[in-house]
Amino acid sequence: MKSGTLDAGEASKDVNPTQRLNRGLSVLDFILRIIAGAGTLASAVTMGTTNETLPFFTQSIQFRAEYDDIPSFTFFVIGNSIACGYLVLSLVLSLFHIVRSAAVNSRILLLAFDTAMLGLLSAAASAAASIVYLAHKGNSDANWFAICQQFNNFCERISGSLIGSFVAAFLLILLIITSAVTISRH
Amino acid sequence: MKSGTLDAGEASKDVNPTQRLNRGLSVLDFILRIIAGAGTLASAVTMGTTNETLPFFTQSIQFRAEYDDIPSFTFFVIGNSIACGYLVLSLVLSLFHIVRSAAVNSRILLLAFDTAMLGLLSAAASAAASIVYLAHKGNSDANWFAICQQFNNFCERISGSLIGSFVAAFLLILLIITSAVTISRH
Repeated sequence: MKSGTLDAGEASKDVNPTQRLNRGLSVLDFILRIIAGAGTLASAVTMGTTNETLPFFTQSIQFRAEYDDIPSFTFFVIGNSIACGYLVLSLVLSLFHIVRSAAVNSRILLLAFDTAMLGLLSAAASAAASIVYLAHKGNSDANWFAICQQFNNFCERISGSLIGSFVAAFLLILLIITSAVTISRH
Repeated sequence: MKSGTLDAGEASKDVNPTQRLNRGLSVLDFILRIIAGAGTLASAVTMGTTNETLPFFTQSIQFRAEYDDIPSFTFFVIGNSIACGYLVLSLVLSLFHIVRSAAVNSRILLLAFDTAMLGLLSAAASAAASIVYLAHKGNSDANWFAICQQFNNFCERISGSLIGSFVAAFLLILLIITSAVTISRH
């Protein structure tokens, strides 16, 4: 009887460190998703709500800059919105993984979607970044002039909006690696 | 004696399907890496070697377009070169996984690098794509004119060079998912 209790105690000691680590990784997964989701939300909202109207205008044209003037910025807002929506939805599955830390198939599913989202988010952030760079510096070879001298406030805000998106992409890389480690320890 | 042989036969039947599938996935991994590497190589070379000189020039300026006129294209060439180098190097580890299909830690390492490369490649392809789009369509709001009417041949080749890069990024997504499935079956 006594020996039986001892055995059970030893067995649970054997299992616990792995389970505890898996649960810890699942909690980390949950927290990273919240931060990444907040990053994409901040990016989408900042880019989507930024506009600047210059205080002078000609008879026919009013000078006004908005995100949907440039297709890359529209893609940025859409990409970040999709990523944000996905990250919020994935919290449900992430919570399930904290409770049932032995689940494997649902982790692979989440990893697959995370990978696709990384591709999307990295593409959206980078497409916008290349246009922001052009807006700041211009390009004399292609005769594209920097527009940030005129639209100073607009440029500052869209530059800032990139940060959340790049941070979220980096967190997705961490999420994918964390998932792979957890899967390997099932 | 006879029964013993039968048991061994049954046991090897039990183990084999998993091992065989893992080996199959490892071979698939190897092939996908070769195709992705070829894609990034083709992209980097096409973008890097494209230039066009217009048949007219003024006294001071000769009209000539090359990839390093535009920082996003330089980033594209560098990003694809790095990804290509990594994919070639990763073939060694991929070959090792075909031989030792039970290896787990080295698969996680490869998955981590694959994920980082996906971020890089997706960013490089997308940054270049947004500039290629601008070169084709221009943007009247920002007063950036399409340059593809003049540099027609240049534009066609750089547009084509994007394909290899996007294909490679897509294959990296498949590689990451394949790795995760193989890791889960160790």
